Amino acid sequence: MIGRRSTSPSPLSFTFEYVCKGSRSKASSSERDRVKMNTEEPELTRDTVMKLIQASQEVKKHAYCRYSDFRVGAALLTSDDLVFTAQAKRPASPVPTIQIHADNHARPSAGCNVENACNNLGICAERTAIVKAVSDGHRRFKAIAVASDMKDQFISPCGGCRQFMREFGLNWDVYMSKPDGSFMKMSVSQLLPSSFGAKDLTMKRETDHGDH
Amino acid sequence: MIGRRSTSPSPLSFTFEYVCKGSRSKASSSERDRVKMNTEEPELTRDTVMKLIQASQEVKKHAYCRYSDFRVGAALLTSDDLVFTAQAKRPASPVPTIQIHADNHARPSAGCNVENACNNLGICAERTAIVKAVSDGHRRFKAIAVASDMKDQFISPCGGCRQFMREFGLNWDVYMSKPDGSFMKMSVSQLLPSSFGAKDLTMKRETDHGDH
Amino acid sequence: MIGRRSTSPSPLSFTFEYVCKGSRSKASSSERDRVKMNTEEPELTRDTVMKLIQASQEVKKHAYCRYSDFRVGAALLTSDDLVFTAQAKRPASPVPTIQIHADNHARPSAGCNVENACNNLGICAERTAIVKAVSDGHRRFKAIAVASDMKDQFISPCGGCRQFMREFGLNWDVYMSKPDGSFMKMSVSQLLPSSFGAKDLTMKRETDHGDH
Amino acid sequence: MIGRRSTSPSPLSFTFEYVCKGSRSKASSSERDRVKMNTEEPELTRDTVMKLIQASQEVKKHAYCRYSDFRVGAALLTSDDLVFTAQAKRPASPVPTIQIHADNHARPSAGCNVENACNNLGICAERTAIVKAVSDGHRRFKAIAVASDMKDQFISPCGGCRQFMREFGLNWDVYMSKPDGSFMKMSVSQLLPSSFGAKDLTMKRETDHGDH
Repeated sequence: MIGRRSTSPSPLSFTFEYVCKGSRSKASSSERDRVKMNTEEPELTRDTVMKLIQASQEVKKHAYCRYSDFRVGAALLTSDDLVFTAQAKRPASPVPTIQIHADNHARPSAGCNVENACNNLGICAERTAIVKAVSDGHRRFKAIAVASDMKDQFISPCGGCRQFMREFGLNWDVYMSKPDGSFMKMSVSQLLPSSFGAKDLTMKRETDHGDH
Repeated sequence: MIGRRSTSPSPLSFTFEYVCKGSRSKASSSERDRVKMNTEEPELTRDTVMKLIQASQEVKKHAYCRYSDFRVGAALLTSDDLVFTAQAKRPASPVPTIQIHADNHARPSAGCNVENACNNLGICAERTAIVKAVSDGHRRFKAIAVASDMKDQFISPCGGCRQFMREFGLNWDVYMSKPDGSFMKMSVSQLLPSSFGAKDLTMKRETDHGDH
Repeated sequence: MIGRRSTSPSPLSFTFEYVCKGSRSKASSSERDRVKMNTEEPELTRDTVMKLIQASQEVKKHAYCRYSDFRVGAALLTSDDLVFTAQAKRPASPVPTIQIHADNHARPSAGCNVENACNNLGICAERTAIVKAVSDGHRRFKAIAVASDMKDQFISPCGGCRQFMREFGLNWDVYMSKPDGSFMKMSVSQLLPSSFGAKDLTMKRETDHGDH
Repeated sequence: MIGRRSTSPSPLSFTFEYVCKGSRSKASSSERDRVKMNTEEPELTRDTVMKLIQASQEVKKHAYCRYSDFRVGAALLTSDDLVFTAQAKRPASPVPTIQIHADNHARPSAGCNVENACNNLGICAERTAIVKAVSDGHRRFKAIAVASDMKDQFISPCGGCRQFMREFGLNWDVYMSKPDGSFMKMSVSQLLPSSFGAKDLTMKRETDHGDH
């Protein structure tokens, strides 16, 4: 069977499956506790949000953060309707299954922070997750969850990550979580108001300057 | 006379002076059109704002932006009450004067963008202005003005610069300008809501992780 | 069969397999044209190098480089002995096969550059490949191949990427390639002589300073 | 007198002066212990090197490095023949003097590292020094000195800084120092062999790609 996950211990404890556009409404009908998305986007189910946060917590274990000792993980939901399904909900399936898209990108794009002795060359978890997804051919995102070890504080993306997210749209959501799974949701546009973007680079300019 | 500017052509066309704390209220009394600052900070005069924007426009001429051809300039107002005074207002002084603080930092900290063939190693104008000031011993800022060549758009700092500003406080102001001198003002906290900062790094954590 | 690749069109045209430590010598015995590795590391076969370069060329197609229009791809060989096997060499296998490690990380870590409207927030292909691997639990690397569209020039990593590579060791190799598959090999230590690293941060210091 | 420094305590303990092109040979004739420069560049005197290192040590005091506690300073020598003159050598001048160039840039461009809570948004001392100089209209450099607190190790620029230096030429020198003033000299081209630069971005390419 294509893409079946082995039953051996895996660093990512959740299972997940792609659900194609057509089957999506059916999958949705059995779900509650929806989390509102921006604009016209359909809402994410609370279950999906939980799986996304869980994925961000799992990948956090791989954080390379020997200088700050501050672990961060991030998990990205692409707009191909990648949906995470909890193992506990699928008793009929003895081995959790991955149904793979035609384009064969089965894994959620989850990333951790990777630091450097020259600290400004490190890369945040959120950007790691996004460059993974882009390298796999994705450029449209629905949501990203972020996890850290801070018990009493929702982990918030830095300004650099907000700008990096904004490159791929303003109307998608950031789930800032605590280790207990609670979260605060803000859209990219809320996190980066009056933002600078690609369009600005092509606007009409004062062109009287000489050298550059 | 200490710090008198030469009359030779200079890349910065404005003049400026430090006004010590004691003399500040007097200087203020003659000024109108105040621009409101955040919280309890005293307001900046419109004249000061204009000088700051002008400084950001002047330094923009030095932008090294051969890859994007997008020039940006930024001028920073430190909290030592550096005040810019327009040359036109001082007819009695044939040579514009700089009155220098005891700590001898006479120049406003103005910076431009400096790009790199490896584009992600470039540095924005706003960050340039701030590292100049920090290298000169300043860590408390009141305002920063940003200028670009976009005729119809206020130039807005990128997320990375917002985070860089936030390192030095949430309650200071960013004047995003157009070439005609018009501007939009937002505080750092408005530009970077729910931000991540130094305090987060020291918060109580889940400490059950092993390697990093 | 676990991990079999679908026969549907895939963005990565090569096939690959993990070979566990035990079976490695056998796989090696049939290979020629070895490329010398640094120090005591076993050599890579020319075939492996070619597959690595091919992977870097394939992932280049996903480059998000709307500002520079300069596409770069990079493919990383981890030290778990991930070995690429050419499809043409395996006629007995009608469908190319992936044999997956127990830890289920089947894909080579290949990354492209991802740019940003704020150009200094972009991420190079080499760093993308490395953060992908680290997020998947890998921290020991044997080689990285880099590809661009420059016909007459081997694509060379920027200084930031060299430092990022160096974080994970000095004695591994960088294959700088041209579109025709020719390459130039240099080790990380050759690319970044007299480099700064983690050890420097812990060296004995002059400690008479006060504030920071 | 133009540009005279005040006698109040100053963070930079050295004095310096610009010597115009015409007077340079005279100034040189009295100097010994030359340090060889690359290619056809005239050599720096040991005295100049010492002043440059001293400037890098002085500015290090302003380092904002609360996360790493690793202070770095850098001082840049522009190609306008900015020459530092030790105060001790000028007993006839009760108040140290700055003779200012026509373009009015009197201060050596010295910078420190400025860190950020999001560590990858920090800026190294070397880059700080360079963006200061560029903002002041300089783009041609002769040498940069770097200082840290490591007693037993010459402080070496990170790969990102090497690339940043390389943007402004390969044939200028980096003086990596220890707190005792001893140094190791390497050129930018030695520190970044086979480097990537602006020219690469304009080379002939394979142009068969579609999207980016």
